Amino acid sequence: MQTPWEYRYAHRMQRMGSSVIRELLKFTEQPDVISFAGGLPAPDVFPVKEFQEACNYVLDNFGAQALQYSTTEGYYPLREMIARHNGRFSVKVSPDNIMLTSGSQQALDFIGRLFINRGDYIVVESPTYLGALQAWNAYGAQYISVRSDENGMIVDELENALRVGPKFIYILPNFQNPSGSTLTLERRKRLILLADQYGVPIVEDDPYGQLRYDGEHIPSVVYLDSQYRNNDTDGEYTGNVIYLSTFSKLLSPGLRLAWVIAPPEVIRRLVVAKQAADLHTSTFNQYVAYEVAKGGFLDEHVKVIRATYKERRDTMMEMMSELFPEGVSWSHPLGGMFLWGILPEDMDAADVFKIAIEKKVAFVPGESFHANGGGKNTMRLNFSYSNPDTIREGITRLGISLKEMLAKNNGHK
Amino acid sequence: MQTPWEYRYAHRMQRMGSSVIRELLKFTEQPDVISFAGGLPAPDVFPVKEFQEACNYVLDNFGAQALQYSTTEGYYPLREMIARHNGRFSVKVSPDNIMLTSGSQQALDFIGRLFINRGDYIVVESPTYLGALQAWNAYGAQYISVRSDENGMIVDELENALRVGPKFIYILPNFQNPSGSTLTLERRKRLILLADQYGVPIVEDDPYGQLRYDGEHIPSVVYLDSQYRNNDTDGEYTGNVIYLSTFSKLLSPGLRLAWVIAPPEVIRRLVVAKQAADLHTSTFNQYVAYEVAKGGFLDEHVKVIRATYKERRDTMMEMMSELFPEGVSWSHPLGGMFLWGILPEDMDAADVFKIAIEKKVAFVPGESFHANGGGKNTMRLNFSYSNPDTIREGITRLGISLKEMLAKNNGHK
Repeated sequence: MQTPWEYRYAHRMQRMGSSVIRELLKFTEQPDVISFAGGLPAPDVFPVKEFQEACNYVLDNFGAQALQYSTTEGYYPLREMIARHNGRFSVKVSPDNIMLTSGSQQALDFIGRLFINRGDYIVVESPTYLGALQAWNAYGAQYISVRSDENGMIVDELENALRVGPKFIYILPNFQNPSGSTLTLERRKRLILLADQYGVPIVEDDPYGQLRYDGEHIPSVVYLDSQYRNNDTDGEYTGNVIYLSTFSKLLSPGLRLAWVIAPPEVIRRLVVAKQAADLHTSTFNQYVAYEVAKGGFLDEHVKVIRATYKERRDTMMEMMSELFPEGVSWSHPLGGMFLWGILPEDMDAADVFKIAIEKKVAFVPGESFHANGGGKNTMRLNFSYSNPDTIREGITRLGISLKEMLAKNNGHK
Repeated sequence: MQTPWEYRYAHRMQRMGSSVIRELLKFTEQPDVISFAGGLPAPDVFPVKEFQEACNYVLDNFGAQALQYSTTEGYYPLREMIARHNGRFSVKVSPDNIMLTSGSQQALDFIGRLFINRGDYIVVESPTYLGALQAWNAYGAQYISVRSDENGMIVDELENALRVGPKFIYILPNFQNPSGSTLTLERRKRLILLADQYGVPIVEDDPYGQLRYDGEHIPSVVYLDSQYRNNDTDGEYTGNVIYLSTFSKLLSPGLRLAWVIAPPEVIRRLVVAKQAADLHTSTFNQYVAYEVAKGGFLDEHVKVIRATYKERRDTMMEMMSELFPEGVSWSHPLGGMFLWGILPEDMDAADVFKIAIEKKVAFVPGESFHANGGGKNTMRLNFSYSNPDTIREGITRLGISLKEMLAKNNGHK
């Protein structure tokens, strides 16, 4: 029977149920399970000492300000620092191009709030980041899935999607979550041209851009867009891309601190949205992050993260080569935190999950990352959280699970 | 000319412009202006030393956990502590009744997301909290304003409003923002009866409940509702009220840390909304707040806040008695942070604002707190932020402004 409360929920909440993936993931919380299912950074690389120094410094010197209400846009020195940082890493912008958010998930929510009317279409990669789908489902979005391969979205297939009249294109060009793919320079340029031609903005989500372990950095989509428009001369970006990045993978996800880069007129609307949603992001956390990150710390610290995660990725790939049965393949991500497994066409990753969880190892079946279905034979594996020994043991267990599954499937034939 | 971006915003954002009040308040940021306009706690009472100890303790002992992603509901020991705290102060609940939010503003946003379809009616006091209107405007709410007096909402006028079929009733029973009014026990009981009779839930917003300077604590609406239903026996609340409170006025607003109390089934829906909106509230801030607040610190600290604010309220009221011209009256709040001024019927507080700002003193004209217009002759004054000397000087300047305005008005007659 329905309770009285259930008749009161707005239509948007009635569309949002508890997801299958969330139910599955409950199994992964058992203490003896080796979980490749989450998307957690390694706690080993959290700069705890630097945080401690920063907290003390901030409270000694700015207690009254750091514990008080503050502006919705974010702490100005932090926005200046992010502008300088992005100027080197991504695109030249002014602080007026920047708003702080409580994690990139909040930026995705605000983008939905800003642009999506019920029924609007959004172009996404297939597979794409699940958190974006969750954010935009709340606004009644529909999705046009464009296929992707190891080089990211197959941009040749984008034009048909753009003719439907979508509200924006959502893309994770670097070491994508979940697939680990990286969009090539050529595809980035073609993406910008097509988006401009059809008048459709691009949302570039770039949490892992600096976590590259092989090859050369590829310029961000927002940078290439500013070049295409000759729009980087005065340091204020006014192009066609909304760019998201975060401190979650560089310093700590527990701070909930990320940033949006967008044309100033879009930032002003985002500020109105944020004011209604939570007034502003924690003042204290912004002061502390500024103190930790300033003076070139980020550049040094990211080297530690890269070395740590590269070893883990390599360990996982080596073990897979050794132990995974024929017919199972996987991506070779150039960076980031995730690796994408592809099972034989007739194998369901959810079935493998059931065997794997009995053997105390977990991953995420790939189907839920596909906005319009498909991908039943895919799986996402996180390599950043577990140390190399744990990865070896976990992949051993997963190899056994896959072999059992194959034997079972062959037995049915 | 409109830019291409302007055609892309969703209807909800097109309804949300920059508010007049926000424009006015820019004047108040000049450094030599004495501002009674904001709603800031006194930085003098921030427990900076305790925060520093807590940060060090948390990072020494729980660095890996406190800087990591965490659960959407909130840090379990903190939810347990809030349950115990509310059990003494407001209503007996279990941790399953509680979700942490990034400030109460976020809880207001989620309540809009959960319950409001475009065009739905919400019952509000007149005047009411501006932040709630901003949050719910984004979801296309309409409002039914019920008049209030120094004893809070005139509940006798509520029944007509309930016959319209509103989604919920929004009420700030203690030392209301903006009016400073407190809802009497008798009215609280009648509110609960009427809400139950018409099947309309109540949202009780209680940021200031513990900041009482005179008289006896009145039981919260959520407690009275649980009594009415004999629903406090097993410690899990399943009634008709969603209750909001916050650490912003007890510890620090810069942490962005508040909580919702609701029936577990509503909490589960709020968790789905929060997961899509920002994953979770800062793990670090929850650990730190827990360390600061535990062991009875809140009970001691609230005494300091009460003593500080009582003196400021008394100073402001004394100065008003001495200096405000005849025809101007004001509320006598029993607690909280705000005092409500009422000008002669034919006087516009926005005109007084213009004179006052020339004399370097600011307040908020009351009209914007009225969901359906009215209140042009009212003003909100904050007494928590400025110290007694500043309050004396500011009220002196405001008294002169009011006298000038009166003289001008009489000149026109």
